Amino acid sequence: MRRIDAIEFKDGRLRLIDQRKLPQEYTIFECSTYLECEFAIRDMVVRGAPAIGAAAAYGVVLAAAQFKDEPTEQFQSSMESALELLNSARPTAVNLMWAIKRMRGVLQEKAGVSTEAMYRALKDAADTILREDIQKSEAISAHGNQLVPHGAVILTHCNTGSLAVPGPGTALGVVRAAQQAGKDIFVYADETRPRLQGARLTAWELLEEGIPSKLIADSVAATLMRDGKVDLIVVGADRIAANGDAANKIGTFMLSVVAQRYQVPFYVAAPVSTIDFECPSGREIQIEERSSREVTHIEGVQVAPDNVEVYNPAFDVTPAENITAIVIEQGVLYPPYTEAIDGLKR
Amino acid sequence: MRRIDAIEFKDGRLRLIDQRKLPQEYTIFECSTYLECEFAIRDMVVRGAPAIGAAAAYGVVLAAAQFKDEPTEQFQSSMESALELLNSARPTAVNLMWAIKRMRGVLQEKAGVSTEAMYRALKDAADTILREDIQKSEAISAHGNQLVPHGAVILTHCNTGSLAVPGPGTALGVVRAAQQAGKDIFVYADETRPRLQGARLTAWELLEEGIPSKLIADSVAATLMRDGKVDLIVVGADRIAANGDAANKIGTFMLSVVAQRYQVPFYVAAPVSTIDFECPSGREIQIEERSSREVTHIEGVQVAPDNVEVYNPAFDVTPAENITAIVIEQGVLYPPYTEAIDGLKR
Repeated sequence: MRRIDAIEFKDGRLRLIDQRKLPQEYTIFECSTYLECEFAIRDMVVRGAPAIGAAAAYGVVLAAAQFKDEPTEQFQSSMESALELLNSARPTAVNLMWAIKRMRGVLQEKAGVSTEAMYRALKDAADTILREDIQKSEAISAHGNQLVPHGAVILTHCNTGSLAVPGPGTALGVVRAAQQAGKDIFVYADETRPRLQGARLTAWELLEEGIPSKLIADSVAATLMRDGKVDLIVVGADRIAANGDAANKIGTFMLSVVAQRYQVPFYVAAPVSTIDFECPSGREIQIEERSSREVTHIEGVQVAPDNVEVYNPAFDVTPAENITAIVIEQGVLYPPYTEAIDGLKR
Repeated sequence: MRRIDAIEFKDGRLRLIDQRKLPQEYTIFECSTYLECEFAIRDMVVRGAPAIGAAAAYGVVLAAAQFKDEPTEQFQSSMESALELLNSARPTAVNLMWAIKRMRGVLQEKAGVSTEAMYRALKDAADTILREDIQKSEAISAHGNQLVPHGAVILTHCNTGSLAVPGPGTALGVVRAAQQAGKDIFVYADETRPRLQGARLTAWELLEEGIPSKLIADSVAATLMRDGKVDLIVVGADRIAANGDAANKIGTFMLSVVAQRYQVPFYVAAPVSTIDFECPSGREIQIEERSSREVTHIEGVQVAPDNVEVYNPAFDVTPAENITAIVIEQGVLYPPYTEAIDGLKR
């Protein structure tokens, strides 16, 4: 297995695999400033809820380096602006807010130390987030693997592998673990319009790993499920509400409706940092609407007429009742999720 | 309303709007030979079940012109080869077989006349098919309009308008009729991966007509339905079995599952020539599998890694139980469809 490191902090710079350019080009996008990091998150150089969180944490580190010659008070207020900006780079992934909150905690806890010491503390915190992300992703993969029967045909949506999550991934981490366990699996990867993360990224990761797979247009999934050709679905999540409703890439909810109709097990794999304990249900999750250009143009090529209006939500919400189980780093949660999730707070 | 003539026969040539190039370029693809016509059908210069049938009928006319200097016996065998080739240009649309069968009937009925007279008879038959197609499409549009409430939000898939069907269209003909009736409608158009007929063609037709609409990625439809934002769905069909199961563009079946779950009326609009009375159910409908390149490349731009495997069925089958009504040129069919369809044979 070739290890894919989508996020790396080296020589004071954040190095990201530029996911806008895969699979045609493998290039590194370097961020020397927090503004570059914010751009990288907003423009989806880096994407995937956990990866966004880790990248943002390093964005805070970059801000600290930029502001470290400022007097302490000004430093604190400059940092606060940077945190705010990074926090709002994308609205749906709760891991972003979670990582920023954790970094703000360090700033508050260490208030008063030299800016140099603060930089080191923030760098340590970001490194810890990244390291813990990798451990969590490994744990999720191992727990999820328990749900995969030998010879399973697995359907997945969007990209939830090493490009989206430090470590082996969430949903794709489960796939990796099943493959490594010698389970003779087969994967159908949804291409995932409009950004085609499945075609660009998941198909690329699956080929890199040598996992047998086929790429499909998103709407092919229904026939496969009806014809009994899918044994289970596993997807990631960008935010999970306290009742188990899960926001994930647009198209996930549609899959879940068909899966329920044809009794295909539907699993969500995500770290606990994806759970928004303050959010009672999916109704309260803000869904990011992205540019119409994502639908009308592909790689700069126009595929729809000029002046066409577009509705382009980036995510949808799968209700808890369509989810068979939620795989987290501590294990597997089953319904009723309100209780199971509440139990995690203790 | 600007009239769109996707198919025209003029000066001994078949002139087709090249639907591979819309909406960026409006160009005419001219066929002087039946081989060019067969290519145009296979490569989707012309697409949409009724339009394919009419184009193939003119392909037979082109063949007759090419072979008209041959001795009668050789002419008949050359024509038979041409018919066979045209008949197999695409496997799913029954209108193609229906049109070829009708043209073969003329060849048999007129056997013995001069090749010049045969050419004229075949040309008359093709003109009749085209003229009748226009009348049927107008009738379907009018009947379907009866099912559309004032102010309706209509979701549609693929392209079923004047580009797919001589005349106003089938499903999009219904939309046109509702618009012309002043019903203040709004349309969500599925982009329809992988060929993007919704983005390229339906969005173009809707803009040409001034019908308020938004383009969406196919998987957005589920959230719209759950949130009560779609009042009805109307789609076309490429083949309808004797029990009402309907093959249509890939993605139609997925829509129908979600529509049933959220009680959104789901209508199929198609001429009787789309019904395959010999085909007992959707299980017997052959589904065309198309090139993986349709998924991996968009307008020549690669969006998936080299060597990725793809499963690319062009159609899926919506079971009769997911269809609220079938609109044909004679009126509206309701379940049980086996009886309703059987009644059409009398």
